[in-house]
Amino acid sequence: MTGINKTLQAIKPVDKSLQPQIQAHLDDLTKPPGSLGRLEELAMQYCLISNTVKPVIGKKKIFCFAGDHGVADEGVSAFPKEVTPQMVMNMLGGGAAINVLSNHAGIKLCVVDMGVADPLSSATGLIRHKIRNGTDNIAKGPAMTIHEATQAIETGIDLAKSAQADGVTLIGTGDMGIANTTPSTALFHAYLDLPVDRITGRGTGIDNDGLQNKTKVIERAIFVNKHLFKDPLSIMAAVGGFEIAGICGLILGAAECRIPVVVDGFISSAGATAAIKMNPHVADYLFFSHMSHEAGHRMIMKELNIRPILDLDMRLGEGTGAALAMMIIESAVKIYNEMATFSSAGVSNKEE
Amino acid sequence: MTGINKTLQAIKPVDKSLQPQIQAHLDDLTKPPGSLGRLEELAMQYCLISNTVKPVIGKKKIFCFAGDHGVADEGVSAFPKEVTPQMVMNMLGGGAAINVLSNHAGIKLCVVDMGVADPLSSATGLIRHKIRNGTDNIAKGPAMTIHEATQAIETGIDLAKSAQADGVTLIGTGDMGIANTTPSTALFHAYLDLPVDRITGRGTGIDNDGLQNKTKVIERAIFVNKHLFKDPLSIMAAVGGFEIAGICGLILGAAECRIPVVVDGFISSAGATAAIKMNPHVADYLFFSHMSHEAGHRMIMKELNIRPILDLDMRLGEGTGAALAMMIIESAVKIYNEMATFSSAGVSNKEE
Repeated sequence: MTGINKTLQAIKPVDKSLQPQIQAHLDDLTKPPGSLGRLEELAMQYCLISNTVKPVIGKKKIFCFAGDHGVADEGVSAFPKEVTPQMVMNMLGGGAAINVLSNHAGIKLCVVDMGVADPLSSATGLIRHKIRNGTDNIAKGPAMTIHEATQAIETGIDLAKSAQADGVTLIGTGDMGIANTTPSTALFHAYLDLPVDRITGRGTGIDNDGLQNKTKVIERAIFVNKHLFKDPLSIMAAVGGFEIAGICGLILGAAECRIPVVVDGFISSAGATAAIKMNPHVADYLFFSHMSHEAGHRMIMKELNIRPILDLDMRLGEGTGAALAMMIIESAVKIYNEMATFSSAGVSNKEE
Repeated sequence: MTGINKTLQAIKPVDKSLQPQIQAHLDDLTKPPGSLGRLEELAMQYCLISNTVKPVIGKKKIFCFAGDHGVADEGVSAFPKEVTPQMVMNMLGGGAAINVLSNHAGIKLCVVDMGVADPLSSATGLIRHKIRNGTDNIAKGPAMTIHEATQAIETGIDLAKSAQADGVTLIGTGDMGIANTTPSTALFHAYLDLPVDRITGRGTGIDNDGLQNKTKVIERAIFVNKHLFKDPLSIMAAVGGFEIAGICGLILGAAECRIPVVVDGFISSAGATAAIKMNPHVADYLFFSHMSHEAGHRMIMKELNIRPILDLDMRLGEGTGAALAMMIIESAVKIYNEMATFSSAGVSNKEE
């Protein structure tokens, strides 16, 4: 049995037997019942995932997975391919948006090379799990082999396990990879059967002609690879990406370890969708951080029956949405842990 | 000239001449232009309010104004009136939701007695500006005199000025007052001409009968007081509240001092609406923190053409929404200040 299958079998739905006890505590806090809305829901979910009525937020970590994409050759992105390694170096140097936001929120950032085309030989602080120097062009054939997809997913699983060993109690996902909205869109189509033209967006900012081209490239990628779509893993291998498979694996590993995962935006949702398709119980462990401004994300969230925490028109990736949402989730857990109760504070409860 | 009129004359629209320079810096940060969505808008607004291309976040402070309401006698709230002083004591003791969230976000909380019916004689740490022991019952006559409304608003103005002297660069509003959704709803009707039955909600959680009663009470309050509605100030005096007038004043004072204000939810929006009606330029200085779950807030925000930052189904008040939104606003300013630029990081820009 491979690592993936072991993990898939180990993932159980959250145990809801503690729900009444958690709810009773939430209702005993000095506020009208339910008046903190989604903060109360987030605290409940966090408790259920951690399987405790006394939740703890320990270390917080975002894994930003980087990878290149052969399909960038089809002109699907507004930015040139060399930006992937440049942005990896920028993250390692502390200058990217995700650095600012994770510092602000007290989150440790880990940048993982899953398949950047550049050797990144001078990079220090990089977590090196390069599968290959970028995927093959999905407009012409499969992105990677099943073996490579398995390797990438298992890398993610292992990272989740090592995070748990390190005392991490809240994991975030992130991505960096020029052109990666293209494979992500192909994955959403393959997993959720959503129409390509309605879920293809402008990514980093292509114009109308670029959008038309990108839509055609994605349709071609699906046409060329459709015969390989057998199960969630083979779909990932056919039209996915190394960093997206890494995200998928991280989510699977976290679900196995019962660590809540905060899913970033469009790309991370593709990794999350793959993980949910492999084992639907995974969904219990996920917080979807924000509604991406990338066209299609709203439709995808609706299809998955998810209402993300934030809606700030962001479309950057890197884990930026996850970092912001982690601040809200931590707020929710603190509300649960730190507020006074009606009896302890001597506050009269609702008149019945 | 009274303090209010002086302040109203001193409030100027923000100077937009720095806008191109601020935008150029935002576009030079290592991300696709606009890809941080509302974070970029928030950073822009913060810079314009502070009238600088080098914004600073100094101290952050939330003022939670407390007051009682004679109209509570009409059975419009799910909680008994004694909860107002009890919750004030809870806040001073650190056990309320706003304590948890402001601690989490590094915000100083100031609790201001504007008109709680209880003397709160044992309270320590309370800022005492009690106008009177609660307003009169608006279902029977005006809430307060013009003189009292003026006093309450000037108290808020003075608090904003003292905050500026103290190095506060970001102010949040908050409220505590059993029954205060009732005067707030009356104010929204009076200022915005919205239909009472569509903007009356369940507050802390009344049932259907309670909601029907509350709607009738508000309609009666408007019928009884309508002849007093001459200008924004007289409307506040007729159907407002001491804490709502305090919020209005705080906002006016902050706008005069060019300090950005984060408006909490339903009650604070009523104070903000009053302030905007007194001088429309006030709107330039306001961040609306969240869409309250209180029925009507969505319609009110639409009428004011505002899209709040968060939408988390919260309806607690106290400043809880403001505290969360302040974390997002601070994130936005840090993005502006701390990210690398394309040239400094050696990242290739968009292909044109």
